[in-house]
Amino acid sequence: MSLGDGFLHPDRLLPADPGLRRIARDLYDGTRDLPIVSPHGHTDPAWFASDAPFTDAASLLVTPDHYLLRMLHSRGVSYDALGVPRLDGAPVASPREAWRCFARHYGLFTGTPSALWLDHAMGAVLGCPERLSETNADALFDHIGGVLAGPGLRPRALMDRFGVDVIATTDGALDSLEHHAALAGQGWGARVRPTYRPDAVTDPEAPGFAAGLDRLGALTGCDTADWAGMIEAHRHRRAAFRALGATATDHGTPSPLTADLPLAECQRLLNGARAGSLTPAEAELFRAQMLTEMAGLSAEDGMVMQLHAGSRRNTDRGMFAVRGANMGADIPHRADWVGGLNALLNRHGHAPGLRLIVFTLDESAYARELAPMAGYWPCLMLGPPWWFHDSAEGIRRYLDQVVETAGFANLAGFNDDTRALLSIPARHDVWRRGVAGFLARLVAEHRLDRTDAAHLAADLSGDAARRAYAL
Amino acid sequence: MSLGDGFLHPDRLLPADPGLRRIARDLYDGTRDLPIVSPHGHTDPAWFASDAPFTDAASLLVTPDHYLLRMLHSRGVSYDALGVPRLDGAPVASPREAWRCFARHYGLFTGTPSALWLDHAMGAVLGCPERLSETNADALFDHIGGVLAGPGLRPRALMDRFGVDVIATTDGALDSLEHHAALAGQGWGARVRPTYRPDAVTDPEAPGFAAGLDRLGALTGCDTADWAGMIEAHRHRRAAFRALGATATDHGTPSPLTADLPLAECQRLLNGARAGSLTPAEAELFRAQMLTEMAGLSAEDGMVMQLHAGSRRNTDRGMFAVRGANMGADIPHRADWVGGLNALLNRHGHAPGLRLIVFTLDESAYARELAPMAGYWPCLMLGPPWWFHDSAEGIRRYLDQVVETAGFANLAGFNDDTRALLSIPARHDVWRRGVAGFLARLVAEHRLDRTDAAHLAADLSGDAARRAYAL
Amino acid sequence: MSLGDGFLHPDRLLPADPGLRRIARDLYDGTRDLPIVSPHGHTDPAWFASDAPFTDAASLLVTPDHYLLRMLHSRGVSYDALGVPRLDGAPVASPREAWRCFARHYGLFTGTPSALWLDHAMGAVLGCPERLSETNADALFDHIGGVLAGPGLRPRALMDRFGVDVIATTDGALDSLEHHAALAGQGWGARVRPTYRPDAVTDPEAPGFAAGLDRLGALTGCDTADWAGMIEAHRHRRAAFRALGATATDHGTPSPLTADLPLAECQRLLNGARAGSLTPAEAELFRAQMLTEMAGLSAEDGMVMQLHAGSRRNTDRGMFAVRGANMGADIPHRADWVGGLNALLNRHGHAPGLRLIVFTLDESAYARELAPMAGYWPCLMLGPPWWFHDSAEGIRRYLDQVVETAGFANLAGFNDDTRALLSIPARHDVWRRGVAGFLARLVAEHRLDRTDAAHLAADLSGDAARRAYAL
Repeated sequence: MSLGDGFLHPDRLLPADPGLRRIARDLYDGTRDLPIVSPHGHTDPAWFASDAPFTDAASLLVTPDHYLLRMLHSRGVSYDALGVPRLDGAPVASPREAWRCFARHYGLFTGTPSALWLDHAMGAVLGCPERLSETNADALFDHIGGVLAGPGLRPRALMDRFGVDVIATTDGALDSLEHHAALAGQGWGARVRPTYRPDAVTDPEAPGFAAGLDRLGALTGCDTADWAGMIEAHRHRRAAFRALGATATDHGTPSPLTADLPLAECQRLLNGARAGSLTPAEAELFRAQMLTEMAGLSAEDGMVMQLHAGSRRNTDRGMFAVRGANMGADIPHRADWVGGLNALLNRHGHAPGLRLIVFTLDESAYARELAPMAGYWPCLMLGPPWWFHDSAEGIRRYLDQVVETAGFANLAGFNDDTRALLSIPARHDVWRRGVAGFLARLVAEHRLDRTDAAHLAADLSGDAARRAYAL
Repeated sequence: MSLGDGFLHPDRLLPADPGLRRIARDLYDGTRDLPIVSPHGHTDPAWFASDAPFTDAASLLVTPDHYLLRMLHSRGVSYDALGVPRLDGAPVASPREAWRCFARHYGLFTGTPSALWLDHAMGAVLGCPERLSETNADALFDHIGGVLAGPGLRPRALMDRFGVDVIATTDGALDSLEHHAALAGQGWGARVRPTYRPDAVTDPEAPGFAAGLDRLGALTGCDTADWAGMIEAHRHRRAAFRALGATATDHGTPSPLTADLPLAECQRLLNGARAGSLTPAEAELFRAQMLTEMAGLSAEDGMVMQLHAGSRRNTDRGMFAVRGANMGADIPHRADWVGGLNALLNRHGHAPGLRLIVFTLDESAYARELAPMAGYWPCLMLGPPWWFHDSAEGIRRYLDQVVETAGFANLAGFNDDTRALLSIPARHDVWRRGVAGFLARLVAEHRLDRTDAAHLAADLSGDAARRAYAL
Repeated sequence: MSLGDGFLHPDRLLPADPGLRRIARDLYDGTRDLPIVSPHGHTDPAWFASDAPFTDAASLLVTPDHYLLRMLHSRGVSYDALGVPRLDGAPVASPREAWRCFARHYGLFTGTPSALWLDHAMGAVLGCPERLSETNADALFDHIGGVLAGPGLRPRALMDRFGVDVIATTDGALDSLEHHAALAGQGWGARVRPTYRPDAVTDPEAPGFAAGLDRLGALTGCDTADWAGMIEAHRHRRAAFRALGATATDHGTPSPLTADLPLAECQRLLNGARAGSLTPAEAELFRAQMLTEMAGLSAEDGMVMQLHAGSRRNTDRGMFAVRGANMGADIPHRADWVGGLNALLNRHGHAPGLRLIVFTLDESAYARELAPMAGYWPCLMLGPPWWFHDSAEGIRRYLDQVVETAGFANLAGFNDDTRALLSIPARHDVWRRGVAGFLARLVAEHRLDRTDAAHLAADLSGDAARRAYAL
């Protein structure tokens, strides 16, 4: 990760106080070039398997990034003008037009993490000499296009330039895993790993749920109309993922509710789910039970279980109808972690094989629920600040609120959770700077000695994630 | 707003770190004398229409200010002793007695925004040479009485001294608007504007709701017993407000719940509301539906819609019975913004004419719900920190939690929301200092360049509010 | 409290900025040797009555401290290995083995308040020359054993060394108070006081509730099967506590819900509670009503009422079955303070004799609910940061969020709330440093003058608690 800073200031994000900054810079210098461990994210395994070049600046940096799209949308920029595909296939702006539109509104991102990430990608990775503006939009589009055509920006070359030791993708339970199989065949299997994310067949409200269950049955030879058969089918698929390098599963639910129901009740819910006759409360109970089942399987097979709970998805029904999911209209809501995880923890919380890493969008739960829980349950670790909170202030608030109660040892390090490939080094860099700033304050306030601080800074920059994800 | 600092330190509220303070002071210096834009507040239009002098220090500064009253009450000072009128007309302390009582307990406000505002008003506006104390209470009472009798402290003169370009009052839907009409006739119509606040006829639990609906019908010639007729009546009254300069409406509800019900259900609720037979849940549904209707009217007529949600009003029933509303016993509670606004946003969230500015008392919603929502929905903007949070720390927490996700462009600038006329410059000044301190940190951490910071500081001090409120 | 700093840095926890630190150190220096007022905690009155020496480091410092146990448990250390007794009496590790195990994992506490407290106790109180580590574990165990055998570490000698003017224990309603009676007979009654904590007979879900009510009746000669008789029994017991120096009661409930029910409904609940037939909702209503009754008794007899609400107790059912309560599995959850206290406050909120001090584990309620409520209701004061929040960052967040709205005068100072005797001076010291840091910022930002700051620092270090608890 000796990427350099591009046109960014080398001391960005470090504390303003000169004494603190000196300490923080020392700590950061010890971590900036450490390899990147990326145990959770949404990059496309096809990129790495095919190693094909990216085509242009807009398709690479703008169109797929819902962090950018949402903000532009909030100020009245249409998704058509940004080149975002429509489900009806109607034409949208070309990449160059989309890029110009983006450049015209780039000022909207002042003060946001998106600007930090993009400035870093454009400067340090793509070699742009200055920040994007309306004036230089065309020139930078051409510059980036040129760079992308060269060998240094191919996906695998980027893994090397970024110093990514290992990266995990996120893959559906029904995924063929063909790209991961190809990667394994090419010796890249330990570096690019799949993650088992079965939401489509664990959430009765997911589109095509019943058909998905049928396919799950066909894929595994299990009877997915039977509760035990369905669990057995997951057992098979998890093994298939592990065979291609997976060490973890991931689960996304609107709430962290878990349940521990008798088998007859489970079967009744499954019948209703297949028939499409569950009420919303029953559908939530189904998801809740499935989380506990997944914890049971993790206790059995050792796959690290991740839970991303608390996002209300697709809150703009009109947008969803026109363009589908991941368009920026997913909004966090309150989460009850202590009540929610009660059933799962009382069932599997002491199982030696279980590790559960939780991610919240409700920061009010950090100090109130999650840090106390992680500081008690052997299986529980805290994931890093997620999504909107993966930012300079979000990292500050997270460390401020969890460390005293959970300790450092119950933190799962960092993960970038991104589908924006070029933002990976920037995101890890922001975390490392945030950690350095936080630790520097503890050192300056004589709450931590420098040796421990240096050790913790390095650990939180990579080894903590390696340990947490059994990599 | 070249008011000077009175007996206050010119660097008050700026960051302590010397480097940060230099940057912050520069930024602040560029904004301190900018005109004041006050698009939401509770000043009395009669003040400006009659331009009569205020009478005395207590009636001006203490008796009407529920921020002060509540704190005194919390330490056992009786409202009688503070000269607060009773509904039964029983005698209370004279202004001089009330002032002495206030002075005796002024130490209670140490460290609170009230002290900042009052010290500023007394020093910079009223020319008091020192902070109020028990010793100087009588002398300052006399001094202020003398100043108030002169021409420089008349309401209109204050508008000039404060540099208030435009101020909006808050007026009931049934208000005669006579003072605003008088102001318009005197050429002050663009400077002092009404705001349409129809709570008394949109909340079935408001006292005199049914009679109010009848008067609304009489005023507009509409049949307010009919749902469509009632909406039409609002359409008329909104037009009347606009004719006198209103650009905005305002709505205060215990929760941000909205609804989108079929007409027959609306009519059923209206019938029940008029008959006084709604359950509390139905009354909430009525208010929820009315918010969506008001958004529809805003989409149609372009009036900016403000929503102040989350205060539990009059929690002290005994106090309410003796002295009525606004006595300090309104307490915030949790608010579900993402679930609450769902119906309204899915119905009108993309209407080009709609702008909705939201205010919360539940700071836990800033980063979790409101910033993500404002960073997606084109119609949505975030109002500044409200009420208890309009303070040095409140402003810090607000900017810390909303900017990264909502961006600066989705903020509606500042409004003072006050009925305490003399606190207006102080409140804007605290905001400007808070903004300067926040931006200074971003500059010092190399997350923002100085030119952008200076532009943002100025914008957030006035133009942002002008744009947001279409002034 | 001239204990010295042991091996800790004398400026620990003070702000890093040099200018702030100078001010903070001055403020702190004015408070560090003030006597300790400890109006709420969980020390054992038998310690002071018998004044017997403690036996060894592990039994004194590790085994009874659930802050330490939980964190070790969270990383897989078994309670057996830490010498924690089992309900079945099966053997567990010896004190020396437990101490070695603890030392081996002491790094887990880096950055936590537990490390601050323990380092302080070991250095400044027990004279250990360096921080605990795996290497020096045996030597320090022996050193501490030697020190404990001497006269300087007896409980009463510690009260003198620590400068504890007064300390309150927490005692069940059915407690014989024999140790407090003994203390009173030895002239220690004003220094070690009981506190009336009747949870076991106010919570129908407490183990042995019905038998407890019977014993309450037998102790007082009241008919506790009758609602009024049961209240009368509490009246008797409260008087007995007051006779031995109690000035306060304490109540721990999962939520702050209160109720104000008609007598017939109360009696119906009592009948059900005695029969063990209440639903969970009815049990909550019973507790809710009892809180209001206790407030009524406090209004009558002047005992200060404390409410610790919001902990979900014993969330790990397996642990509870094996080792009982207070094993680290009590986790906070959300609390609705404004809705919860509504009934109590509307019934007794203006009673001149009532003082209610509230403690929350839901920090989101600080600025939203508790500070506004304390800044209005004459009876209400805010207790200091509780449990997980009694830490450097927790104190920072507390002061940041409550002072502006509640003022300093509605704060009840500090209490250590501990069963870890040797941590008492460290806990008060962390608070005093936190207060000094907070006030220093206000001074540096010209929001507070130095004289007021010095007065507030001293007041919050002792006198505020004395006043709040009528000591």
